[in-house]
Amino acid sequence: MDLIQVEIAQQTTLFNDLRKQQADASAVDEVKKKLGELKRALAALTGESSKDGGKKKERILLKTPKGTRDYGPSEMHCREHIERIVKDVFTTYGGSCLDTPVFERKEILAGKYGEDAKLIFDLKDQGGEELALRYDHTVPLARYFAMNGALNTQAKLWQVGKVYRRDNPVMSKGRMREFTQADFDIAGIFDTMIPDAEIISLVCTIMTKLEVGDFTIKLNHRKILDGIFEVCGVPQEKIRTISSAVDKLDKMPWADVKKEMTEEKGLDSAVADRIGEYVKHKGGPPLLDLLQADAALMANPSAKAGIEEMGLLFKYLEAYSVVDKISFDMSLARGLDYYTGIIYEAITEASAPPGFNAANAFASTSDAPQPTPAPTPTPKKKAKKTDGQEDEEEVDESKVGVGSVAAGGRYDNLVGMFTAAAAGGGKKAAQLPCIGVSIGMDRIFAIVWPRWVERGMRSKDTMAYVMAAGDGLLTERVRLVQELRAAGIKTDFLFKNKPKLPAQFAAGEKDEAPFAVILGGDELKEGLVTVKEQRWEIVDGEKRKVQSADQGTKVKRSELISWIKSTPTYQGWATGKLL
Amino acid sequence: MDLIQVEIAQQTTLFNDLRKQQADASAVDEVKKKLGELKRALAALTGESSKDGGKKKERILLKTPKGTRDYGPSEMHCREHIERIVKDVFTTYGGSCLDTPVFERKEILAGKYGEDAKLIFDLKDQGGEELALRYDHTVPLARYFAMNGALNTQAKLWQVGKVYRRDNPVMSKGRMREFTQADFDIAGIFDTMIPDAEIISLVCTIMTKLEVGDFTIKLNHRKILDGIFEVCGVPQEKIRTISSAVDKLDKMPWADVKKEMTEEKGLDSAVADRIGEYVKHKGGPPLLDLLQADAALMANPSAKAGIEEMGLLFKYLEAYSVVDKISFDMSLARGLDYYTGIIYEAITEASAPPGFNAANAFASTSDAPQPTPAPTPTPKKKAKKTDGQEDEEEVDESKVGVGSVAAGGRYDNLVGMFTAAAAGGGKKAAQLPCIGVSIGMDRIFAIVWPRWVERGMRSKDTMAYVMAAGDGLLTERVRLVQELRAAGIKTDFLFKNKPKLPAQFAAGEKDEAPFAVILGGDELKEGLVTVKEQRWEIVDGEKRKVQSADQGTKVKRSELISWIKSTPTYQGWATGKLL
Repeated sequence: MDLIQVEIAQQTTLFNDLRKQQADASAVDEVKKKLGELKRALAALTGESSKDGGKKKERILLKTPKGTRDYGPSEMHCREHIERIVKDVFTTYGGSCLDTPVFERKEILAGKYGEDAKLIFDLKDQGGEELALRYDHTVPLARYFAMNGALNTQAKLWQVGKVYRRDNPVMSKGRMREFTQADFDIAGIFDTMIPDAEIISLVCTIMTKLEVGDFTIKLNHRKILDGIFEVCGVPQEKIRTISSAVDKLDKMPWADVKKEMTEEKGLDSAVADRIGEYVKHKGGPPLLDLLQADAALMANPSAKAGIEEMGLLFKYLEAYSVVDKISFDMSLARGLDYYTGIIYEAITEASAPPGFNAANAFASTSDAPQPTPAPTPTPKKKAKKTDGQEDEEEVDESKVGVGSVAAGGRYDNLVGMFTAAAAGGGKKAAQLPCIGVSIGMDRIFAIVWPRWVERGMRSKDTMAYVMAAGDGLLTERVRLVQELRAAGIKTDFLFKNKPKLPAQFAAGEKDEAPFAVILGGDELKEGLVTVKEQRWEIVDGEKRKVQSADQGTKVKRSELISWIKSTPTYQGWATGKLL
Repeated sequence: MDLIQVEIAQQTTLFNDLRKQQADASAVDEVKKKLGELKRALAALTGESSKDGGKKKERILLKTPKGTRDYGPSEMHCREHIERIVKDVFTTYGGSCLDTPVFERKEILAGKYGEDAKLIFDLKDQGGEELALRYDHTVPLARYFAMNGALNTQAKLWQVGKVYRRDNPVMSKGRMREFTQADFDIAGIFDTMIPDAEIISLVCTIMTKLEVGDFTIKLNHRKILDGIFEVCGVPQEKIRTISSAVDKLDKMPWADVKKEMTEEKGLDSAVADRIGEYVKHKGGPPLLDLLQADAALMANPSAKAGIEEMGLLFKYLEAYSVVDKISFDMSLARGLDYYTGIIYEAITEASAPPGFNAANAFASTSDAPQPTPAPTPTPKKKAKKTDGQEDEEEVDESKVGVGSVAAGGRYDNLVGMFTAAAAGGGKKAAQLPCIGVSIGMDRIFAIVWPRWVERGMRSKDTMAYVMAAGDGLLTERVRLVQELRAAGIKTDFLFKNKPKLPAQFAAGEKDEAPFAVILGGDELKEGLVTVKEQRWEIVDGEKRKVQSADQGTKVKRSELISWIKSTPTYQGWATGKLL
């Protein structure tokens, strides 16, 4: 917008104001003349006819970028509640906060995400460094450790912030291009499996406090998985890609996964079948006994080490009282390259694609009675264009689940990769063993929000709404509002000089403020104000105000703050028991 | 990083683990053989000699992008404290939270920032929409209002998040390319100047609670400023650019500003002198009387309207009891195009460039005795290259102040510009009057942080550190830690099986945990634990632990939680009175 256009807009406002105020005709005329001059000046600059005055501009599209969205006040009230719980558990477990920039130098992100590197959002080269938006919090954290002396670090760090992936979004399931992850990581050299158990306990605590419904922590070990692939005869260079295929067993039946292994990835069919026999297992500690009895597996050093570590982990999880939440799931593989030890995912009922039952994934190879096969959940592609600019295809949202709501694993080499790369590979890299978890805040919001709406939760925390029954009393209202606010009571009022009482009640009810405080000229002279408590209820799924014949309580103005603070209603809101 | 390199890293870890555990020679050999195969496979792929195994990679630079930085645990503890205060005031004043994406469609940002549009960070075109990082919160907010039915909106919305400007950073003064702004905006049709007074009161409340030292709210009105320019004879098309020059009077003497007006911007010297006579004024309500007595100014419709509104505003600010914080400053102009009414900035002692005194800006044109002129504060350019890629010059940080710590104004046309542009300019645009303020969180941090360090503030909130005096007692430690955490007591322990007591004390002291809880085998059998309170003090500017001969208190394990919670120390931390 040209500076002249700003000036035109401002003079137009002034012109309208003056006419509204019935100002002198001469003043109105002067502004009108000036407007004319400005419009002619603009026309001369843009070459348009002066009559249109810049109105023939191209239409702009009012929308957020693909895969992103605004969160309005009610949604943010819920999201803040979720974030508060997560952060509180993070600090209760001894975590400290870290904040890194939203973008990184491209070379920091390069080579950390395997096949998914194509999803990285690059910034335009505007002269300077090559930059890209962060893809997760883990790589920036490892870069931070490497910059700040990795070897001596012993830390529990948490980060809450947005990360970016140019993926196909499924907005209704909280799968976005811009999304918020809350990460907790433990770095340092400790005794085997103790930090690992601590992280799993942390995830269980958060999931319990968030009320996302029943949840399960799926758990596996990269060393066991790698051992299985070796024992089954997967060539070394195919291990990671076969691992990615196995990871899809939470949303595809085994038959499809096997096809991917053999047809797409060129694995021998017999090898695939041997893998299938292993990865169909899931369960608790008894599964460990089964593996320990497998001589072929125990002869593989990687598998043996992983199985022993899992035994130790289950012992510690017992002390943390969370074994009942764990499913040792041999099909869990996780996509990211950098994991070196245990890996895990938290899932809820909303995680799987609708109609898909992971328990039936091996239906065709199982000896159990054959249940009706679930519909193939491979997301159908629909050629739905959003804004005429995108050439990617949209997925059918009804065929996609929320996915895992938290996930992570141990990554003992990532920091060392940075220290090695920064040293040019010449000297021995400083290592720093790490383990962490990322909580998918948008996916959790997608689960919590419908319940929040159903329960009619408030969208803001305003406690008191100050009104005048008499002649406006603006100064008196402002003074009382400021006193209440200074006492920590969240208070508002209507920005009108002489508002009618019903308009003020309507404004206070829109905010669902539980206390209506009414000032009257005569009462004020006696040092009194009237307080009326407001309540809401859910009737037939609709939230509505409880009608009441209560005329309110007369309270001494000087005692109003302590009166409000002593009510059960205030104490309920203030301590967070009522939301 | 190639998948094979990941595999090499993992096998290397396994190889080292096995050697450490003194595993079978055959197992070690097997892993060694596999490693050799992998390295040969990698060499074949990359064409390197197998001996180096991929070590000759290019060295990467471990740093954050220019103008950005990490905030570590201690700093984040302080930043969270600042953010908590700001958000608390926002909700106390009736605000609701809004969150918009970090990037916007380019056409949304286009034409809103005048000469500063060149500072916008663009994203790379990767097929799809043209996107750019947000420059402030105001334009996304206006886009949100325009998308969600502007005319009916009455809202107080706040946003806290990062915004982006490709400017020359001055990191030590909190002037960054990525920085956090906390915005509060009031939208809707209300009686004149009431929301305006509310916003100014909000800024005063926040500045008082943040303890940034003495502060002043500089206040002016775009209508008065425009009227002055007209009365002085500035041509219409030069008003905005002359306005930008006037705005520099907080860091440049009048002589330099005048030179910019006449030499760079071609203004007549006599016109500039007339402007100088007006903009040198600052003060309180008496300045209004002075302006009202100026017949030439009062004959200008824009100036007259502005002066009347300022009179009303001062009346309301009286009711809010904040007039003593206000400086009606006729040189305040603000750079952004979209303001239409009052504009304001909060400044502190740290705002001005070191050695520059704005009160002396008019020294050479004043009749008062001439004080020693301040050194010319125009930032010196230094050709300091940061990373061999940037071609921009760095500014000399010692010559730059923190600048304003909060700023804003009324912008009644911005939402209407969006509704008009979305409608293609054909029909009448839906307007929504708005007023808002942006708080510069990094600048506030730059002021608060040194004081925080001086006072030896804690960097985390861990309350209790659980230790074992006996034989490790890992299970017992984990169980007690989990009980304390479940009771809301932030607790940690050392992740070792059989740690020595001094190592555990050292770890607890690193966290500055005020309660050391010590478990001993025999005591536990009697149902007892030992609690030792830890204290710190500042001596000669250094924080250190208070040495004490106290052997600790024996407490019943079953009463430990209530015992800790009843201590003055715990209550001090928990209520935030001690930081």
